[in-house]
Amino acid sequence: MPVSLTAPDPASLHPVAGVTLGIASAGIKRPGRKDVLVMRLDDGAQVAGVFTLNRFCAAPVHLCREHLASGKPVRALVVNTGNANAGTGLDGRHRALEVCDTLAGLLDCQRQAVLPFSTGVILEPLPADKICSALPEAVAALAPANWAEAAEAIMTTDTLPKAASVQLPLGGDTITITGIAKGAGMIHPNMATMLGYIATDARVAPSLLQDLVRYAADRSFNSITIDGDTSTNDSFILIASHRAGPQIDNADSADYLALRDAVTALAQQLAQAIVRDGEGATKFMTIQVEGGRDHQECKAVGYAIGRSPLVKTAFFASDPNLGRILAAIGYAGISDLDVDQVDLYLDDVLVAHQGGRHPDYREEDGQRVMREPEILVRVMLNRGDATATVWSCDFSYDYVKINADYRS
Amino acid sequence: MPVSLTAPDPASLHPVAGVTLGIASAGIKRPGRKDVLVMRLDDGAQVAGVFTLNRFCAAPVHLCREHLASGKPVRALVVNTGNANAGTGLDGRHRALEVCDTLAGLLDCQRQAVLPFSTGVILEPLPADKICSALPEAVAALAPANWAEAAEAIMTTDTLPKAASVQLPLGGDTITITGIAKGAGMIHPNMATMLGYIATDARVAPSLLQDLVRYAADRSFNSITIDGDTSTNDSFILIASHRAGPQIDNADSADYLALRDAVTALAQQLAQAIVRDGEGATKFMTIQVEGGRDHQECKAVGYAIGRSPLVKTAFFASDPNLGRILAAIGYAGISDLDVDQVDLYLDDVLVAHQGGRHPDYREEDGQRVMREPEILVRVMLNRGDATATVWSCDFSYDYVKINADYRS
Repeated sequence: MPVSLTAPDPASLHPVAGVTLGIASAGIKRPGRKDVLVMRLDDGAQVAGVFTLNRFCAAPVHLCREHLASGKPVRALVVNTGNANAGTGLDGRHRALEVCDTLAGLLDCQRQAVLPFSTGVILEPLPADKICSALPEAVAALAPANWAEAAEAIMTTDTLPKAASVQLPLGGDTITITGIAKGAGMIHPNMATMLGYIATDARVAPSLLQDLVRYAADRSFNSITIDGDTSTNDSFILIASHRAGPQIDNADSADYLALRDAVTALAQQLAQAIVRDGEGATKFMTIQVEGGRDHQECKAVGYAIGRSPLVKTAFFASDPNLGRILAAIGYAGISDLDVDQVDLYLDDVLVAHQGGRHPDYREEDGQRVMREPEILVRVMLNRGDATATVWSCDFSYDYVKINADYRS
Repeated sequence: MPVSLTAPDPASLHPVAGVTLGIASAGIKRPGRKDVLVMRLDDGAQVAGVFTLNRFCAAPVHLCREHLASGKPVRALVVNTGNANAGTGLDGRHRALEVCDTLAGLLDCQRQAVLPFSTGVILEPLPADKICSALPEAVAALAPANWAEAAEAIMTTDTLPKAASVQLPLGGDTITITGIAKGAGMIHPNMATMLGYIATDARVAPSLLQDLVRYAADRSFNSITIDGDTSTNDSFILIASHRAGPQIDNADSADYLALRDAVTALAQQLAQAIVRDGEGATKFMTIQVEGGRDHQECKAVGYAIGRSPLVKTAFFASDPNLGRILAAIGYAGISDLDVDQVDLYLDDVLVAHQGGRHPDYREEDGQRVMREPEILVRVMLNRGDATATVWSCDFSYDYVKINADYRS
């Protein structure tokens, strides 16, 4: 029951020059299920990525880091669903390399030119043979217009595919930004991976691309929480195919800032789609923290609120137990926080002023806001100028129900 | 549905010389409900405490800290349920002081000789008048044998009272240790407070008492998690009435170590009772982390596992999704953890060896253990000699259900 989310209209997803996509069925979990995606990048494309900080990160994540670090041009990405190839040790690495080598052979490039991604069950061996035998079908299907199919192919527990696309004028030309993502809905246990891929035809210098992917990730995929569990496989990749617009080498140029903001907005759209499709979600919360000393402490407060099972169940119940939000602010880890300066708004309702319940606050006002499917929680720390925004969903009956019942 | 927990037998709770307890009804939430406890301490008693680190800590927590810091002898503790007096600003402080002053007047002692405690709803004004008018009844009822009634009086959402008592020979004499606690069951939203009180008649020097309360808290009340939310009111108080046994001034003496271990064991029994009575709990998990560089990193791993909604729902479902435990270890914050050294046991079943699924591990073995009501999770980090143990419960259907339904 996603919150205000619909499947993307395939016609709205602009192809990105220099990027082709092919889907195939390897039958990893179910025969016939499209579970393999190959993205091919033409010469000149630049790639940057950010990955999970989980120390138990999966074999493909290790290989992505190594292959990107090799400095060799990336020519292809390969994604499989149904198996995360995590907690699989050295054998998992060998199997992931087998997939890279097979695709490299088909595309006549080096092993390091291939980035592998896996999502699905942890602790089980990757069926590399099945994936490799499906690769020729995927390569044969490579086409620029396959973004909608690609968004479906990487789904695991998502109830809807997630894709977005935008075009903007840049230096007298028009550049395109198109992306897909899959969620960490946790609907099906062990399938917790967030994958995001955004491609643009803009000519952005490699040195800026890594800054851009970090900037966008920090304000999108790294600003959402569903249940606070950090996946072993999370990856966000940004591709620049260098086919349109002016050459962008300067982080202060108007062109870079326009591209940066457009990429970030698209990443936020995809990240929010993941939360809207969160396991059992019935409410979408935007937690806006203002007046902090720095972005980090604002984000820590946003996450403390967005992760709290007490806060999330209260939102599910449309129950203004707003003391729980104050309690979460209090344990967010700001050791010198003066709570007597903290204000709390629920949408337009001032709930707490200077650390205590506001005299004018009436429970029915809080109740009214809590009943909405989209709720803005605003926290003013009143100790600085920094801000941060975190997106979260409520914690429903179904979260536990589905997790508990899925094998029965 | 507490896990292997029964109400304490009042006859098993030994009185502690120099400590009397009186219960009264202030009708804070329901007329007739016993909701006020007064503990009176005779001359010579020493008191030490540890309190929540939540920055939004309640007014009574601030006053406890100030009154203990004043160095003046503590003559009484007063506890009310039904209202937490948190998020109440300066008015909350005045109301808590009103309670202290009233009790000080009845017992003919100074305001700073009274420690106040509150648990219940956050963000609502403390009904100090009701509490003050109930204090004479509580004072009139003061008696040494009221520990069982006291355990009941401090209950909020607990389904069973929690109390324990032990006697041990010390220096040719017999000393008594008796304690009560209430849980952070979260059954009823906004009632998240853990309160623990342990009294002994031992003659332990004030300088050692603060070390002892920290030592015991770290290994008991600070080693449990139900849903990871840190209350605004958590308090653990240790009282030494100096009526029995030898004078204990040396932290290395056999007498101190015997007392320390007995107090810690009793605190663990009370802390585990809180988890066994955790909201909707159906499983009791002991998470034992071994081979860490220090106690802190072992505890961080234990808490990452014990708090993970994915791990907790898997235990509720008796479903060996054990990759989730590895994932939790991976995001516990040990930045240089070599996961290829990590072993994972479920009771006697070796699940993962050197970071990967053990070849001999069979799912039916994991399933067998997961069906038990009491489960031992053993993690070997294999990077040092430190250990830590965390106790947690599963995350059931009822946790969300009760939280969501409680107003309807």
